[in-house]
Order: sequence, then C-alpha cells, then structure tokens
Amino acid sequence: MDITFDTPPALLADRFKTLRYDEDAKAVVVLDRRKYPFQTEFVTLRTVEEVAVAIEDMTVQGGPPLAYVAGLGLAMAARDLDASPTRQAVYLEQVAKRLLATRPTADDLNHIIPAALAVAHDALRENRDPFRATLDYVNSEIERGNTVSRLCGQQAARLVNDGDQILTHCIAGAALCWMLWTAKQQGKNITLVGCETRPYFQGARLTAASATEMGIPFKLITDGMSAHLMSVGKLDKFICAADRVTLDGHITNKIGTLQHAISAHHFGKPFYVLGYDGPDPKTATGADIPIEWRKPDEIFYARGETGTVRTAIHGIDGYYPAFDITPPHLISAICTDRGIFAPNNISAYFDEESKT
Amino acid sequence: MDITFDTPPALLADRFKTLRYDEDAKAVVVLDRRKYPFQTEFVTLRTVEEVAVAIEDMTVQGGPPLAYVAGLGLAMAARDLDASPTRQAVYLEQVAKRLLATRPTADDLNHIIPAALAVAHDALRENRDPFRATLDYVNSEIERGNTVSRLCGQQAARLVNDGDQILTHCIAGAALCWMLWTAKQQGKNITLVGCETRPYFQGARLTAASATEMGIPFKLITDGMSAHLMSVGKLDKFICAADRVTLDGHITNKIGTLQHAISAHHFGKPFYVLGYDGPDPKTATGADIPIEWRKPDEIFYARGETGTVRTAIHGIDGYYPAFDITPPHLISAICTDRGIFAPNNISAYFDEESKT
Repeated sequence: MDITFDTPPALLADRFKTLRYDEDAKAVVVLDRRKYPFQTEFVTLRTVEEVAVAIEDMTVQGGPPLAYVAGLGLAMAARDLDASPTRQAVYLEQVAKRLLATRPTADDLNHIIPAALAVAHDALRENRDPFRATLDYVNSEIERGNTVSRLCGQQAARLVNDGDQILTHCIAGAALCWMLWTAKQQGKNITLVGCETRPYFQGARLTAASATEMGIPFKLITDGMSAHLMSVGKLDKFICAADRVTLDGHITNKIGTLQHAISAHHFGKPFYVLGYDGPDPKTATGADIPIEWRKPDEIFYARGETGTVRTAIHGIDGYYPAFDITPPHLISAICTDRGIFAPNNISAYFDEESKT
Repeated sequence: MDITFDTPPALLADRFKTLRYDEDAKAVVVLDRRKYPFQTEFVTLRTVEEVAVAIEDMTVQGGPPLAYVAGLGLAMAARDLDASPTRQAVYLEQVAKRLLATRPTADDLNHIIPAALAVAHDALRENRDPFRATLDYVNSEIERGNTVSRLCGQQAARLVNDGDQILTHCIAGAALCWMLWTAKQQGKNITLVGCETRPYFQGARLTAASATEMGIPFKLITDGMSAHLMSVGKLDKFICAADRVTLDGHITNKIGTLQHAISAHHFGKPFYVLGYDGPDPKTATGADIPIEWRKPDEIFYARGETGTVRTAIHGIDGYYPAFDITPPHLISAICTDRGIFAPNNISAYFDEESKT
C-alpha cells in the first residue's frame, strides 16, 4: 500500500488547528464552524456553560471535535477547584453530566467525558493536579484522533479509483481529507461532489473549503440531486463519515445520508463509510442509537456569507431530526484505522489480529 | 364519490388570480413566485422579452403557469402588428420560438405555444383580430387548466385517508390544493409534510402558504429528511405533481423527486403523481424528456424574507439539473382529470371511455 504521511493542506485535517486549550487565556479556543470559511473566527470559551452552549448551538460540530471540546471543558472545570475533595468530585460529575447532555447521537462524547472524569477523579484521589491530568488525557485523545483519521483515510484511499466522481454528505472531517489527499498523491484524478447539507450548509462551506484547500476539484449539489446524478452516470460512489457505528454494522450520520445510501443501493453504486476508530462497543444495533431531534426553527433559516435570512414562511411547524440511521445491507464497506470491514463483520474490529 | 365545488381558499388554487392579461395596462401581470408569500408582488411584463426572461428567471414557474404566461406573451405580440400579413406570420413564429426556448422540460409550454401560434395564424389568414383570438384561446386554456386541476385533485382525494401524513415536494399547484381541500371537506384529518425544495424553497414558501391558507396542518422538512421520516413512521405516502408524464408512465418533476420515490419504494410507501391532464402524447418514454440543466450559480445562494445570501464558498463549481425522471415501477398511481391510472396503463388516458 502506497502511503503518504504529508498532512493534507486543509484546516480541518488537523484537529489541533481548530480547537485547543489556551494556557494564557485559561480558556478553550475553537473555530466557529457555523461561519468558516466565510469568516475564520475563533471563539474563546471561558466557562463550562459557554463550552456546552457552543456544542449545542453548532459553533463546534462533528462527533470527534465536539467531544474534544467537551473534554477540554471538563479539564477547565478541574482547574480552579477550591472545595473539599468530595465536593470537587461531585462538582466534576455535575459538569460531566452537563457536557454529556449537549448532543446525544455521536458516540465520541460518551467515550471521552466518562474517561476524562475518571482521570480527574484519579488525580484528585492521588493528590495530583486534576486539571493537568485531564488536559493531558484529552490532548492525547486529540492526538490519537489525528492518527486514527490518517490511518482511516489512507485505508479508504484504496477504494478510490482514478477518475472517480465521489458523492459525499455533510463534512466527513479529517479522514476524508486524508483519503482525498492520499488518493491525489497516488496520482488518482478525482472529483468530489458535495451535498450542501441543509440546514447548516456544511457541504457548501466546510467540505468545499477542505477540497479547495487541497486542490481537489469540487462540485456542489443540493441535497436532492444525488439520485438523479447517479442515474445519469455522474456519480461513481458515495463516501461519508459516521457519528456512530454499531456492533452489527448500522451507522448514523447527518440527516440525508440514508436517502443517498438507498439511492446508491438502487443504482448499484458502492457506499463506503469512514468509520474512524470503529464501532461503539456499547451500541449493539441501530435501534440503540438515540437520534437527536433539534428545534424545527433551525430549518426555517439559511445562514450565508453576509448574514442569515428566513427562508420559510411564518406560522408553520417542522421536523428536524439531525441524524438518520443506515442499516448494514445498504453499506458496502466500513473503513477504519485498523482496515476495511464488511458491515456485518465490523465487530471483528476488536479482534486481536485487527489491532496489529 | 363525494365532491366539493368550493374553490380552495389558496391563492395558487385559481390560476387567474396569479397571472392574466391586463387590458388597461396592455401587459401580462404575474405574481412573483420567487418572493411570494414573503411579498405578494405582481410584476408587469410589457414585451415578449420581458415575458421570456420572467419565465427563465423563475418569476413565474410551474409547468402550466409558465405556459399560460408564455401564451399571454404571444397574444401580446399579436396585438400591435403593423407589417404585411406574411411578415406578421414570420414575426409571430420568431416570438413563439423565443418563448419555447425558455424552459425545455415541462410539456405544457410545448402544447400551448404551437396551438396559440396556429390560432393567431388562422386569425391573420381569416382577417380576424389575431390578438383577441389568441388571448381568447389562452384564457380558455387557463379556464380548462382550472377545471383539470379541480378534477385531478378530486380524484386524488380518494387516495387520501383520515390521519395521513403526506410528503410532498416543491409545489404541486392547484391540483394539490384541490386534493387537500376536498379531503378536508370529506372530514379527513391530514398533515402535509413539505420539502423546502432547494434552491428556490418553493416548499417552504408556496406549498407552505397554500396549506396554511386552507387550514391544513403543515410540517416543513429539508430535502434530505424524507427517508428517515418514512423509517420512523412519520410519513404515510408521497404525492407530488409532474412537469411531464410520458406514454409509458415515466414522470419528470422538480429535482429531488426521484430520491423521495426511491425511498418510498424502499419503505413500501405509495407514491401518487398528480398528473393533471395526463401524458404528453408526443413523449414516448423517460429518455425522450429533455432535462434542463441550469446555471450552477443558482444553487450557491438562498433567497429569503429579507434578501439573498451566498451560502456556498467562492471558487467552486456545481451541478444544477432542475428536474429528474422517475420510472413507472417506482410510481403507485397517476391521478388525472379522467381518473386514476396505473403508470404502465397511463396511455389509456386517451381511450374514448376515459373521456366520459
């Protein structure tokens, strides 16, 4: 396998470039993903509540990034503890509960926050600095996430052929950057066809920006065009990320993914999932994934380069499920840092031989 | 069959309310469908070129409405003829050619313009007023279209059950209004779930307004949500219009329709088409429908209540097929003014017994 280790020249390819704990400001600093790349603005979050709201209001989004920011928020909460050790532990548990309540669907948050809380508790018990211990843990997770993204993307590049027109949905993050960059380094000419991804236009902004930054030709489409483009031979495969992979090969991803998967299946086009560090060991099947329903109000507006306009009439209601679930029979393969798996065999990710 | 003849209280249910020839202004007056209902503005079109551009830039849209406006434009051109009869005929042919070139996909334009041209030519030859003859013909077509909409909608109401949650896409026009209004008069409680329909948000504006004006509960969704809502039991059937129906039961409609049809088929939900006055006798199959590809620029923006914002980054390309084609095996039934047909039997629309 032909592998490159050059980091892709896309801002979103390296998580440390878009989120970090700032020691001087004593705050969590994050890229505002609702505005990027129209504005490259970093937001400074000084309290746990500010961190939680930044996750809830989509300032930071994407399964791993929002989990890292929550973890940094927990570290920040462990910084200025001044009560008794017992009350400190209770306080950190409340903080963890608040952060866990922000977004229910992606599994990264449910992995990092309990683990970071355990690190903080251990430090308190052993009389070490809970802030430093927690921050070190979260930073090591971000570092691990960067490595996972590289390995997952490099694996996925094997499924990309010269001349491919690849459909993607929402923002598939660092692994997508690594996949595209690796394929490009391998001499494959590819076109990325990105759905704009209503209501937040992640495809028209974040994915479009990443492709452009790497010099990958990019074609924007609206969320309703994929089936037609498949029917006229303008799409060869569908590749996106997953906010959670289950032990039996279901995936959840940004709303709209299921429609593209059903259409790909209908037209005999492969659907590959960028599964990063594999399935969630605690989620058996799709029915166990809690789907987040957000306020319908959010779909009544469009945010653009120069502001926000209301696009729907007043006095109506709506539905806003933020994610959907795609079953394994509609998925061709799930790419991870440990290799490429058939969806029904994704639990083999945890086998010893997969880890080598 | 329980039929009501009360016109539905929705602006779009009666075509004469949104487009007409104004004898005083000597101009075609049309509702600006890009702004309604945020602004209820009527545009005055004084030349054939203004009529053509209003069709091209979506000021007037929808297969029948744009065809009527084009027909009124041809009548207007026949008003102030001052050359020789031969040169008058040649001029009207050029006008017809210009109007026919505006939008290729819907069949109504291809029906009304040649017919209106023949009426004008006949009048010239018989020394009658070509303007009055053409205007009378187009107005009779608008009147016929209103009747077709009523009959088609009343037929379709038979397929609506009490408690239905009905998915629709874009704006299905006067027949949808009649269907919903008739079902409501029949005591059926229904909810209309409308896709916003990027890039012009017809669903979030026009369809939402029609439903609201008739007191039908309306839920807005983005174009990528239909499959998920089907999977969780929040949609019972999919009903939309068609810009053209072929003799073998293919339909073309606003881009996004095919994805919903494939999803409906996948989840075993019926898909009914409001086929108005039936198939185009000149179009044998889906491959014969010319799909309009519009400028990608149009999908880089969102127009809303207070203006337009750019939603996509600069320096990218895109695809904008304005329509897609759904084959008969994904369609459960096609409703027309002459009854409800199985898609593969839609050519029976022209049988003598259907006309009674």
